[in-house]
Amino acid sequence: MSNRSVVAAARCHQGAALPVWFMRQAGRSLPEYRELRRDLPMLDACRTPEVVVEASLQPVRRHGVDAAIVYSDIMLPLAQAGIDLEIRAGVGPVIADPIRTAAQVRSLPELDPSSLAPIAVAVGAIRAALAPERALIGFAGAPFTLASYLVEGGPSRDYARTKALMAADPGLWDELCTRLAAMSATFLRVQVDAGADVVQVFDSWAGSLAAADYERQVLPHSASVLGSVRVPRIHFGVGTGELLALMGRAGAEVVGVDWRVPLDEAARRIGPGRAVQGNLDPALLGAPWPVIAERARAVIRAGAHAPGHIFNLGHGVPAGADPAVLTRLVELVHTEGPALRAEASATREEPHEGS
Amino acid sequence: MSNRSVVAAARCHQGAALPVWFMRQAGRSLPEYRELRRDLPMLDACRTPEVVVEASLQPVRRHGVDAAIVYSDIMLPLAQAGIDLEIRAGVGPVIADPIRTAAQVRSLPELDPSSLAPIAVAVGAIRAALAPERALIGFAGAPFTLASYLVEGGPSRDYARTKALMAADPGLWDELCTRLAAMSATFLRVQVDAGADVVQVFDSWAGSLAAADYERQVLPHSASVLGSVRVPRIHFGVGTGELLALMGRAGAEVVGVDWRVPLDEAARRIGPGRAVQGNLDPALLGAPWPVIAERARAVIRAGAHAPGHIFNLGHGVPAGADPAVLTRLVELVHTEGPALRAEASATREEPHEGS
Repeated sequence: MSNRSVVAAARCHQGAALPVWFMRQAGRSLPEYRELRRDLPMLDACRTPEVVVEASLQPVRRHGVDAAIVYSDIMLPLAQAGIDLEIRAGVGPVIADPIRTAAQVRSLPELDPSSLAPIAVAVGAIRAALAPERALIGFAGAPFTLASYLVEGGPSRDYARTKALMAADPGLWDELCTRLAAMSATFLRVQVDAGADVVQVFDSWAGSLAAADYERQVLPHSASVLGSVRVPRIHFGVGTGELLALMGRAGAEVVGVDWRVPLDEAARRIGPGRAVQGNLDPALLGAPWPVIAERARAVIRAGAHAPGHIFNLGHGVPAGADPAVLTRLVELVHTEGPALRAEASATREEPHEGS
Repeated sequence: MSNRSVVAAARCHQGAALPVWFMRQAGRSLPEYRELRRDLPMLDACRTPEVVVEASLQPVRRHGVDAAIVYSDIMLPLAQAGIDLEIRAGVGPVIADPIRTAAQVRSLPELDPSSLAPIAVAVGAIRAALAPERALIGFAGAPFTLASYLVEGGPSRDYARTKALMAADPGLWDELCTRLAAMSATFLRVQVDAGADVVQVFDSWAGSLAAADYERQVLPHSASVLGSVRVPRIHFGVGTGELLALMGRAGAEVVGVDWRVPLDEAARRIGPGRAVQGNLDPALLGAPWPVIAERARAVIRAGAHAPGHIFNLGHGVPAGADPAVLTRLVELVHTEGPALRAEASATREEPHEGS
């Protein structure tokens, strides 16, 4: 059993502890991050070890979360491979030359692991600076979400070009995803080799797909990325209620869930032997503290019905979130979590009947 | 049994027929609509009877759909009541003075039905121009979706201010929704009194909510709007997989479903005696025709497991959709639908076990 509570929970051996971290904890919500970043473009920040180290450690210092997550971006390995893109503030990834033809897919560059050397340096330094009981989470994008940016040229509401490509040319789609899976796998391996204890694979937009398409055209590529490392793995997407059973089969020890599905029901869908991560609605961070506290307690109680639980939000920290609220939330999870879990577990039905 | 196939299907008495219409069929995808609208602001177009009549009839003439839907906007009744807003092209509703305080909620104007006189005139003229076997669908917004625009000030990705208001001040939230429900009910009644045969209540963004919040703070207000008219009612939202059982209890005869949940599974969640509407993914309209046709057939087969089915997309027609594809889709539904339904119904399990 690991002395790192996030690792232990991912392996469903957490005991009384309830670990907590927040997606996007390193970033825009922290004034010290905005001070650090200033006018540095996002991808340049991700390539500068001292910025990566500092941005990754800031939320650990401030909030006392149980894990640092490497400050980076899912598009970084694509940029390091030579794809012309930028992360535009308030927009997201913008691709200079969207990928829509077979010729474009076939001329996608490969990712040389040595181009990730600054990230490896940063990861090693973060691990060295972290207290031994805190985990360091590496991450990468899943092929569908990466492909959606490449094909659409940027963020999208409906993923129409991506879905049309999937439907029109499944062979080309598989080729595109195979190349992207290789890049994400390299990105993960570099982070793990440099000291990441856990990884999270973000398939943020997979929830836009019907389950049958997800199973046939997305899951195998995500499984390939997840299968590329030997540390505990978390797999996350937004609006994945219909996909949780499939995501439970992708190879990750932990499935991250947004706020739409209570964690007890999520655990039922994901299947036995998998931990869950989540799932307080980040949109509620602007509510009065007693409301947030009551919602957080409900998340903890529901999570006690899964064999492992890592507390998190159901999606990333909003840019406008009050950092003091996040700190208070960490305190609540640490002080009230163990008793709430024990109490809720005592009433756990075997087998649990869902809600 | 009505001779209008949409009405008959809504009442689960459709026989062999499979009716079809498309959300947003009246609008941006049609060149004749863009010619008609020209530089006229959206809300002005909605207040001009001859524009409303022509825009509503255009898709019936072009595609041969089984229903016209009144060309309008869910925000129109709010504008007619005197709330300062516009529908900005490519953006959506923009509210001059977002509603965030109790004083603002309490000073919201009431809607005088006489301010909807141009809409009544238009609805009467559309009904008179339509062939008797075609239905005329009136519509309104559900209180949550309307409130989300008023509170956020426009479209939103996370509905953070709306959710914070719901959590922080449930009494004020109920007061806001009660007022909005009254406006939408008036909007529906004016359309029904003028000749609408069916209504659809759009709660487009309700899928952003957890089911427990939806049940407590949204469903009662939607039910109030649905309960205000005596014609068959369709209730629709996007990403509502977790809410379908609750939506089946809101009072509508038909629940509209997006593409994420197959219609046989949707019917199981919605419960007995309710028809379904949907659910081809509009993002697939850019795929090659054989792919679209095969997906449409799968939708028809799955829909045959519900006691009534109105074919539609899983969300609105995208602005860039090729109208010729929509016309071809109507032909497919009409020519292949009856046989596909009969065949799929023959294999229907009783009781159906879901997927």
